[in-house]
Amino acid sequence: MSGKPKPNPIRFGIMGCAEIARKVARAITLAPNSTLYAIGSRSIDKAKKFAAMNKLSDAVKIYGSYNQVLNDPGVDAVYIPLPTSLHVQWAVLAAKKKKHLLLEKPTALDVAELDQILEACESNGVQFMDGSMWWHHPRTAKMKELLSDSQNFGKINYIYSTSTMSPTPQFLENNIRVKPDLDALGALGDLAWYCIGASLWAKNYQLPTTIVALPDITRNSDGVILSCTASFEWNQLNGTTVATIHCSYLSHSSMDLAIYGSKGSLHVNDLIIPYQENSASFDYAAGAKFTELHLGWNKKPEELCVGTELPQEALMVQELARLVEGIRNNGCRASSKWPEISRKTQLVVDAVKKSIDLGCKPVNL
Amino acid sequence: MSGKPKPNPIRFGIMGCAEIARKVARAITLAPNSTLYAIGSRSIDKAKKFAAMNKLSDAVKIYGSYNQVLNDPGVDAVYIPLPTSLHVQWAVLAAKKKKHLLLEKPTALDVAELDQILEACESNGVQFMDGSMWWHHPRTAKMKELLSDSQNFGKINYIYSTSTMSPTPQFLENNIRVKPDLDALGALGDLAWYCIGASLWAKNYQLPTTIVALPDITRNSDGVILSCTASFEWNQLNGTTVATIHCSYLSHSSMDLAIYGSKGSLHVNDLIIPYQENSASFDYAAGAKFTELHLGWNKKPEELCVGTELPQEALMVQELARLVEGIRNNGCRASSKWPEISRKTQLVVDAVKKSIDLGCKPVNL
Repeated sequence: MSGKPKPNPIRFGIMGCAEIARKVARAITLAPNSTLYAIGSRSIDKAKKFAAMNKLSDAVKIYGSYNQVLNDPGVDAVYIPLPTSLHVQWAVLAAKKKKHLLLEKPTALDVAELDQILEACESNGVQFMDGSMWWHHPRTAKMKELLSDSQNFGKINYIYSTSTMSPTPQFLENNIRVKPDLDALGALGDLAWYCIGASLWAKNYQLPTTIVALPDITRNSDGVILSCTASFEWNQLNGTTVATIHCSYLSHSSMDLAIYGSKGSLHVNDLIIPYQENSASFDYAAGAKFTELHLGWNKKPEELCVGTELPQEALMVQELARLVEGIRNNGCRASSKWPEISRKTQLVVDAVKKSIDLGCKPVNL
Repeated sequence: MSGKPKPNPIRFGIMGCAEIARKVARAITLAPNSTLYAIGSRSIDKAKKFAAMNKLSDAVKIYGSYNQVLNDPGVDAVYIPLPTSLHVQWAVLAAKKKKHLLLEKPTALDVAELDQILEACESNGVQFMDGSMWWHHPRTAKMKELLSDSQNFGKINYIYSTSTMSPTPQFLENNIRVKPDLDALGALGDLAWYCIGASLWAKNYQLPTTIVALPDITRNSDGVILSCTASFEWNQLNGTTVATIHCSYLSHSSMDLAIYGSKGSLHVNDLIIPYQENSASFDYAAGAKFTELHLGWNKKPEELCVGTELPQEALMVQELARLVEGIRNNGCRASSKWPEISRKTQLVVDAVKKSIDLGCKPVNL
């Protein structure tokens, strides 16, 4: 994997050789304003194997520890795909070393940990962003444009989302995402992150007033959540908005988002990872009515397709690198947009967990 | 409206000139084994107007009272689209007059009322069916076939459905479906009927073990439910199944059903009234996985299209008429299939209402 020469790119180090790091390594190479500069693992052999398997350029530095990545003055930003329980330790250290941060989701085990990370970023003037890719797809912007058109879409009343995947039996026993000492939040951290983010996104990042988990919580033998459902409520002057989320490691892959306004509706079924890289679609309808005698509908939802030259993960890296360039070249402050989105998402993760721990009692935010 | 001559058809009387009666009058004419024989209203003028507006054949008898319809020995079966609060009175009387019954949904204000109706049907040997049309579309049978293929679809883990429509402000103030003395169940009776039915259908009519309403209940000034959300749980030896339903008179039209199995998923967005009369589609996927590096999916859901010569409401009438023919011509007993489905649906409506009345406490069935 090697890109064209780029003028003065943001140089990324990757800390850890998780499977997802392969996708992000490619994204760093694809983004026009970033370059993959270093890869570090606890084992130099693992790092070398990663470099070979992903055909990294010979120029990429290979390190046998995370500290070497953080101590290399050539590294501008790091991508951290480590297990969630290790985030606070390594993300805080990275910020102290003045490395800008792309941190895999869930950002932390709880908001108290995330606040340590965000405070370290703030006090060290580094940019923070979590690794949610779908925010950066142009489809997301197009959907937001239509949702914001209150003339046609009306008030948003109901939001529904799923994030499900059916992994192998091996995953359910051994993957880090279901190990209590590594990713104690299980499906709530890994999968619900997207549903919560999508619900907040639809509501322009207004926090819900009440959060309640539903009683259908499935756990593995270690007590880690494999499947759960929750509901959020926004009580507003103009009426209520409700969101329902469902996340599960037990069901066939789904990434559904449906939004129901008073005048329109929107459906997408591949929100988190589009079916294809270069374009993504969604269904939009406004003003659909039944025909005379209710024999049918006056219109079917329209399928709107949004193309993209770069895949969403490269757009994510490009956005982070753009912000870092602003800080480095123009003396800008770090943007608060992405840290705030992450923090609100984590707050809702925490609230769902609290509701679960309280036996599905409502939690007010 | 007039059909070809039919040999010895089941003769329907319609009691009431509701808007939906126009669609069913047409369906009775379209079905090959039934004929529209009489129409009755509390006002003869209204009945005459209905006949003229719907171009009913001159042979159709026009009555100025429901009793005249019931007292006409030529009437084999009646369709009752009256407000729900009038169902028990007129449906019981119809059964006593030996008229087979097509009763609009919700079948009654509660299961105790429905039981009076069903007992009257049983003791008078008449067939009962509620007016849910979607059961009878061949798409429904095709979807059931795929859901039942556990090899490909796996275990059903999650079921999601909506029934929403955004009526005019006039509807929200004046329609019978939001009047406490006429249809006290509001959206829960009218719209959730479909979602509950679809959830039960997906689970082969097994009743859920627990039912809970979510706190987002919107009512009109008379206290009638305009919008609500609820969740059902089936606790089984092979794990849990959960359903979430959302019904609302406040949102743009939607009739979504999504079913998530361990190996497959199914989505339909026009369940209750297909977009078009002569064919209907749904999306089905099994074995969808992410491609290498999770850059996309190995397959998109497949759109499966199911054609039908007769619209679903005519198939509904045809099915009822077929059962009535069996009773009339072959001495069959009335089928228990449709009354049982209606009764289970009504039981779940009651349980959601009870949960709402208890402040969203879980209700065990």
